[in-house]
Amino acid sequence: MTHDAPDRASEAMRWFTGLQARLCTRFEELEGGAARFESTHWSKPADHRLKGGGHMRMLRGAVFEKAGVNVSHVWGRASDTGMAQLSGAESAGGDFVACGISLVLHPANPFAPTGHMNLRYLRTSGEWVAGCADLTPAIPFDEDTAQFHAALRAACDRYRPGAYDEYREWSDRYFFLPHRNEPRGVGGVFFDELASGDWARDFAFQRDVGEAFLEAYPAIVARRARMPFGDAERKRQLVKRGRYVEFNLVFDRGTRFGFATDANPDAYLMSLPPLAAW
Amino acid sequence: MTHDAPDRASEAMRWFTGLQARLCTRFEELEGGAARFESTHWSKPADHRLKGGGHMRMLRGAVFEKAGVNVSHVWGRASDTGMAQLSGAESAGGDFVACGISLVLHPANPFAPTGHMNLRYLRTSGEWVAGCADLTPAIPFDEDTAQFHAALRAACDRYRPGAYDEYREWSDRYFFLPHRNEPRGVGGVFFDELASGDWARDFAFQRDVGEAFLEAYPAIVARRARMPFGDAERKRQLVKRGRYVEFNLVFDRGTRFGFATDANPDAYLMSLPPLAAW
Repeated sequence: MTHDAPDRASEAMRWFTGLQARLCTRFEELEGGAARFESTHWSKPADHRLKGGGHMRMLRGAVFEKAGVNVSHVWGRASDTGMAQLSGAESAGGDFVACGISLVLHPANPFAPTGHMNLRYLRTSGEWVAGCADLTPAIPFDEDTAQFHAALRAACDRYRPGAYDEYREWSDRYFFLPHRNEPRGVGGVFFDELASGDWARDFAFQRDVGEAFLEAYPAIVARRARMPFGDAERKRQLVKRGRYVEFNLVFDRGTRFGFATDANPDAYLMSLPPLAAW
Repeated sequence: MTHDAPDRASEAMRWFTGLQARLCTRFEELEGGAARFESTHWSKPADHRLKGGGHMRMLRGAVFEKAGVNVSHVWGRASDTGMAQLSGAESAGGDFVACGISLVLHPANPFAPTGHMNLRYLRTSGEWVAGCADLTPAIPFDEDTAQFHAALRAACDRYRPGAYDEYREWSDRYFFLPHRNEPRGVGGVFFDELASGDWARDFAFQRDVGEAFLEAYPAIVARRARMPFGDAERKRQLVKRGRYVEFNLVFDRGTRFGFATDANPDAYLMSLPPLAAW
């Protein structure tokens, strides 16, 4: 591939990798050092149409029943299926560069919410930053919802007026189960194909969202992880996780993109909960 | 709707309803009378585009952690989405009649296989019988696989030479997880749009498949339901059930048809296991 643009993918990837390390350190602190993330590095085979790979980090502990924090960086010529789902790929002859960080945290305690964030960079005929972060409690606490949204709002307010309302509404539309007529959780933010013309500014916003998640989510889990609970709360959590599975397998764009291409199922299905009930 | 054909849907439905009762009785026997099926009757609202309804029967017991045996009978004018997925619906102006029986059994014992069968009747511009039956053990036994297939083979052999090989291969193609490159289970039979020109004969074959399932599957479960098992077997079962969820939510045509239309999620998601792990 030849691009005149500076290698912003590498710059973004360095930041995603650093955030992955900081998030994992923070989650291991919440485990009190009793559980550690395991690492899996993967690469596209040498003869593959696409190049690149990723680093998956997975922890199963007492606070987080399952925590996955993945980064990946893949480039090359998209398949027809892939191209149809990548903005601007057709006019770039299918060439793309994509990298990002994706995390899903399933706490063991039913009072602690499931957390999710995805931040990504895409270059085809143009270049974009995109991302989302949302919270899915089985048993919601107003205090947690307010803290999570306040952190995201602050990040959005630094980007531009109105951004928070717009991205929060987008998240409400996106994280919704139409067949159940119910929201997946208590929302967050969702933004796609940001290209204000000032990449440094867009990338700074994306980093701010990452910092907001790192600030708010572990603090919420710390507050809930040791609350006593019984079978009824565990049952509510497992059923809520079943809804999470329904959303991710049927509606989530990232997962559907994984199914439609020959992506690594261990990576794009990392989001599935350790245990779910129907 | 006006149709000159005799009301074969009602005839099929009477048989499906009888089979539902016989299956539920047999499954309750396996529970030793300690657990009973609960019934839920549902109908399309009076002002709905479609008419009809169904009868869902669900049991949660010691032998069957979750057993669902549903019948339904729906007719009317299909939506555009529905029409695209119903053969011959377009030339019938969207009019259709569909009825069927659908069952999924998730035994508690990891040595007892998950069982599934669906038999259905469809009338649009033509009329067809269709169905499938398959077995998904977490821990396969050759004896069980052989017994299940022998019963289905006998039903197919009575229909026409070559039917078993054809429908078994169709099942192998259909019950497959491409993203995992693995079969869902040990197969069975799959047949669609049977219309040999002799409806009585096609319907007799469909009934034979139903009888084969009733004969073989409860016998297999009876043999496995009390085998001692440990955590390792339970874990294998829960992970295998996770694969079952992936297949049903992502690939199964019936479930996808449910998501694409405004069907009752409690009915088309009845197949999901009581508990699954990733």
